[in-house]
Amino acid sequence: MSRIAYVNGRYQPLRSAVINVEDRGFQFADGVYEVIAVVDGRCVDLAEHFDRLDCSLAALRIPQPMSRAAFSSVVEETARRNRVGDGLVYMQISRGVARRDHPFPPNAKPTLVVTARRHVLPKGREDFPGVRVVTARDIRWARCDIKSISLLPNVLAKQEALDKGAFDVWMVDGDGLVSEGSSSNAWIIDGRGTVVTRPTGPEILGGITRDRIISLAREDGVEVVERPFTVDDAKAAREAFLTSTTTFLRSVIRIDDAVIGSGEVGTLSQRLLDLYITYARKGIVCR
Amino acid sequence: MSRIAYVNGRYQPLRSAVINVEDRGFQFADGVYEVIAVVDGRCVDLAEHFDRLDCSLAALRIPQPMSRAAFSSVVEETARRNRVGDGLVYMQISRGVARRDHPFPPNAKPTLVVTARRHVLPKGREDFPGVRVVTARDIRWARCDIKSISLLPNVLAKQEALDKGAFDVWMVDGDGLVSEGSSSNAWIIDGRGTVVTRPTGPEILGGITRDRIISLAREDGVEVVERPFTVDDAKAAREAFLTSTTTFLRSVIRIDDAVIGSGEVGTLSQRLLDLYITYARKGIVCR
Repeated sequence: MSRIAYVNGRYQPLRSAVINVEDRGFQFADGVYEVIAVVDGRCVDLAEHFDRLDCSLAALRIPQPMSRAAFSSVVEETARRNRVGDGLVYMQISRGVARRDHPFPPNAKPTLVVTARRHVLPKGREDFPGVRVVTARDIRWARCDIKSISLLPNVLAKQEALDKGAFDVWMVDGDGLVSEGSSSNAWIIDGRGTVVTRPTGPEILGGITRDRIISLAREDGVEVVERPFTVDDAKAAREAFLTSTTTFLRSVIRIDDAVIGSGEVGTLSQRLLDLYITYARKGIVCR
Repeated sequence: MSRIAYVNGRYQPLRSAVINVEDRGFQFADGVYEVIAVVDGRCVDLAEHFDRLDCSLAALRIPQPMSRAAFSSVVEETARRNRVGDGLVYMQISRGVARRDHPFPPNAKPTLVVTARRHVLPKGREDFPGVRVVTARDIRWARCDIKSISLLPNVLAKQEALDKGAFDVWMVDGDGLVSEGSSSNAWIIDGRGTVVTRPTGPEILGGITRDRIISLAREDGVEVVERPFTVDDAKAAREAFLTSTTTFLRSVIRIDDAVIGSGEVGTLSQRLLDLYITYARKGIVCR
C-alpha cells in the first residue's frame, strides 16, 4: 500500500506529495512540527500536542493554518487513509512560499503537511531492552523549547551516537548539566528512589511524554523532582531512562562507559513504562 | 518572464519546481546553500563559493551532487535562462528524500536546487546609504561556520531588526563580543584607521565577500586585523560596516542608539566599497 500525505488541502500519494522549492521550510527551516503516537487507532495526548504546536507557532509568529477541529479531522483522516492502527502521525507547518529573503514575508500562506505511518509500537518488556547513551556537548541554539524544524544539530547528534554504537546522545550544556537527548528527554533515578528530570525552559523541549510520565509517576506515589543533573549525577544514578513520543520510555543502562545500576533495565523504570503503556493503550480520542 | 529553477537535473518554471515533502532539507534543515552575486553576467568569486560549499558538505557528510565543472555549467545555465545580467544565483543541496528518521539515511541521493534572479545591484554611492544595526544576543548554534539551511535563528534576528526599524542585527556572544549580522559579517575601523573584523571560527560564517574585502584592503595598503571586538568597541569606532554577497558593503552609521563617527558614511568604508565594486565589475568567469 502506498502511503498518503495531506498537503495544503489535498490527500495524495506520498511519493508525489511535494512543496515548492521556495518554501521557507526548505530554505530557512522556518517552521514547526509535531509527532504523535497512534495506539489502537487513537492519537495519544493529541490536545497536548496541539497546545505545544500553538506555542511553537506563536513563538515564530506563524498563523494557525486552520481551526483545531478541522486540523484534528485532517490528522484522523490521514491516519485512517494510511490504515494506521499503531503508528505515528507527523505534522509540519512552515511559514509558506515566498521569494527568498530572511524577513517574514507579509502575505505568505502557511504550508501544512501531515503524514502518517504504521509502526510496530513497543508492546511488552521484551521490546524495551536497555540502551547506551553517549554524552556530547550541546551545540544547539538557545531556544530548544520551540519545536522547530531547525533540526540539523539534532541530526548530527543522533548520527554521532550511532557512529559510536550508542542509541542516543545526552547533550551537556556549558555548566556540565545534561539537557536532553537528540529527540528525547533525559531522566535519572537517584539513590533515594526519586525520579529526576530537567525543568522545562529554553534549553530543552518540553516533551509531551515527559509531562505524562511525571503525572503517571506522581499518581502512582513516586516522587518526581524537576531539577538539572550533571553527567556525574547520571553515572552514579540507580537507574536512568529516556522518553519520547516514538520510543515511549527506554531504560539507559550505560552512559559513555559507565554502567548504570545493575546494568539491566531498572525496576522503577520498568514500572513507569508499564504505567505509560497502560495509559497509551487506553488512548484518548482524537478530539 | 517567469523564473526558471533547476531541480535534480531538470530546468522548469519556478512555480512548479518542487521537492518531496520528505526531503530532509524540509524536515530536518539537513542541507547547505550558497548565494552568489552575478555582475555583468558573470559570477563573482564562484570558485571561492564552491570551495566553501565543499567544506559545508564535508562537515555534514553529504556527497557532492556532481563534479564542479558540471555544477558550474548548471549555475551558468540557470543564470542564463533567467536572463540575469546583474543578480543572484542561489544553490541548495540537501541530503535528499528518506523516510523521516534522524540518522543519515544510507542511500539517499542529494537534492540539488539552483535558482537565479535579477536584482538591481548597487552601482554607485547613492545606492549605499548608511544603515542602523541593533545588537542582540547571539542565540545560534555552535557551528555557524557551516553554511547550513538551519537558518531559523537568523530569520528571527533579521525580523527583530526590522521590527526595531533597523537594517540588521549584530549578534553578541556570551563574552560580549560581536559575532556577525543575520546574513553578513561585521566590521569596525578603529581610531588608528585599522580595519577590524572577527577571525573565522565556529562562531561565524567565513564570508566570501569578507575575505575579498580583506584582500582588496591590504592590496590598497589598508591595515586589516582579524580580532574580536565588543559592542563598546563598535560604538566607539571611527567607522563601522557590514559585508555580504547581496549587500556588498554597507556603512553602519548607528549601532543601537549610538551614532558612529560623524553619523555619515565613512571615508574608508566608502573607499573599500569602491574597491569592491570595481573588483566585482571586472568579474570572474564562471569556471
